[in-house]
Amino acid sequence: MKARTIILDGMGGDHAPAEIVAGAALASMQTEHKICIVGDEERIREELAKRKHNPAAIETVHAEEVIHGHDAPVKAIRTKKRSSIVVGINMVRDGQGDVFISAGNTGALMAGGLFILGRIQGVDRPALASTYPVLSGGVSLLVDSGANSECKPNNLLEFAAMGSIYMEQVMDIEKPTVGLVNMGTEENKGTMVLKSAYTMLSRSRDELDALNFIGNIEARDVPNGPADVLVCDGYVGNVILKLTEGLAWSMLKLLKRKFTANIFTKMGAAMLGGKLKELKEVFDYSEYGGAPILGVRGAMVKLHGSSNAGAVKNAILKSVPYVENGVVRRIEERMIGMEAIAISE
Amino acid sequence: MKARTIILDGMGGDHAPAEIVAGAALASMQTEHKICIVGDEERIREELAKRKHNPAAIETVHAEEVIHGHDAPVKAIRTKKRSSIVVGINMVRDGQGDVFISAGNTGALMAGGLFILGRIQGVDRPALASTYPVLSGGVSLLVDSGANSECKPNNLLEFAAMGSIYMEQVMDIEKPTVGLVNMGTEENKGTMVLKSAYTMLSRSRDELDALNFIGNIEARDVPNGPADVLVCDGYVGNVILKLTEGLAWSMLKLLKRKFTANIFTKMGAAMLGGKLKELKEVFDYSEYGGAPILGVRGAMVKLHGSSNAGAVKNAILKSVPYVENGVVRRIEERMIGMEAIAISE
Repeated sequence: MKARTIILDGMGGDHAPAEIVAGAALASMQTEHKICIVGDEERIREELAKRKHNPAAIETVHAEEVIHGHDAPVKAIRTKKRSSIVVGINMVRDGQGDVFISAGNTGALMAGGLFILGRIQGVDRPALASTYPVLSGGVSLLVDSGANSECKPNNLLEFAAMGSIYMEQVMDIEKPTVGLVNMGTEENKGTMVLKSAYTMLSRSRDELDALNFIGNIEARDVPNGPADVLVCDGYVGNVILKLTEGLAWSMLKLLKRKFTANIFTKMGAAMLGGKLKELKEVFDYSEYGGAPILGVRGAMVKLHGSSNAGAVKNAILKSVPYVENGVVRRIEERMIGMEAIAISE
Repeated sequence: MKARTIILDGMGGDHAPAEIVAGAALASMQTEHKICIVGDEERIREELAKRKHNPAAIETVHAEEVIHGHDAPVKAIRTKKRSSIVVGINMVRDGQGDVFISAGNTGALMAGGLFILGRIQGVDRPALASTYPVLSGGVSLLVDSGANSECKPNNLLEFAAMGSIYMEQVMDIEKPTVGLVNMGTEENKGTMVLKSAYTMLSRSRDELDALNFIGNIEARDVPNGPADVLVCDGYVGNVILKLTEGLAWSMLKLLKRKFTANIFTKMGAAMLGGKLKELKEVFDYSEYGGAPILGVRGAMVKLHGSSNAGAVKNAILKSVPYVENGVVRRIEERMIGMEAIAISE
């Protein structure tokens, strides 16, 4: 196996650079690949010095600017040429790195991917693909999970194709099933966009054998993992992801309160031991290695803004199959065949 | 207090007529208003005979046709003139009843409301308004929760105005707060429709003092009841409602499984007694009296298709303030002032 270089944005996210560097330190002891942290070199070195790590696996590249959460994405990419995001994506473009991982400004990452790496031919809209934890185990991939609030039917088709390849290559799922998030399961449900997307997805299954499309999915079934890839626009994807997060935490808080209301339930709660904690872990997004940005000509991973060291470590380790299995190249190959379906609609 | 007549669709829903009639029987012993059940009179009388009820409070009206869940809504309303839905809505139009309650085909109810009762002036799109249980207690009103998958900005403004009046008059909330479900809290977030709606909602607050608009709401906060009225299109509203339902049930199932995994946790679970059941009740939609259809010229309530007797009883009892407090008339009055904002955009 060829040694890869994983480029890590040292300055993105709520807990940068401390937690980012801490995650890199942890990962450095578990991988034979190289981790290159981009950002304020002095601060990164300082953080690194505090933590046990494998010095041979970590290098740093200086970038004196930072793109903040409130910066306007396109403008930030155009003007902050020495930011960790621009420097990091440039390194992927120039072959100095194999994947760029960042917990920074999502819009800036999308814009950076588009302007610096460019779109894969046949992809109109690159997408953010988030893993959605299924309660009974495993994950679904939710595409788009927030990058494109307004979508045309062919965008949803692209999301389905790109998501399928990711699930095949990175999650090892053969012929991943694809579902369209809709208001009902019947074929004629939803908006005009959803109806056209349904037709396109059906045709790509029947005529190209390109997708394992299983039809419309109701939101009620989403927690049970009804399909490997769940396709929707970014507004709905954002609602699904955020509502799940909010509801899971609120329910656990409520349970905890109820379970400690009196001495008997307190004893009960104590006896239940780690069970609540286990449940919490099902919803712990830090376990799932971040969200790939699919459709740009290079591998990129977006981490939750509040990512801690564990989440960063997981993202680093899980980015390896994303690179090894040539997801970007496979999307390039697949999109050529898909274009006919989209254009003819 | 004037005695009201509540028209009940005896034939709508998964458990009709048995559970519908059972709900009416329960309600008949707790109200001084009249309940009129519309549908297959023989079957309704049969069910009624099985149950304790107050005969003075219940009457029946025969309707020999039934609109089923799979019937195309507009066609069903046009052709099934002797269906319980058409007969029941006609009775509201003709002043023979004050409100129509049904667990039947949602699309047919919307179409029936539009064709038979007509739209309130200034309302482009009547909406389904569902109560959303807030974990810490109380409810938010989610408008639209599934009737209009595609919305223009002025539709969202209408939803906000109608929802506010309902919360004021039926839920007794002074100056109910209104939030727009969006992808982030910043003003410039979301689709073009959401951005325009944000502007209109702000203007109706600042220029007309008509709405207590508090800005954008992220889906993550929805379970905590961030606003009394949550405004969104019907696609997103459907996703919020159904995902909440699905996730709550899945989590409870998972908890139950985890809590009965071994003898110790089994004992713990037993000691926790009714706590899990309490939690289940927070998410029990049957407690909340159904979803008003707002914007048509008459009072209508849609019940969940799987409503049981308890849900039907609650809907009957809770429809009284909806009628008593003149929600329909107040919407008519309010919409006149709102039109200027919508038109000028």
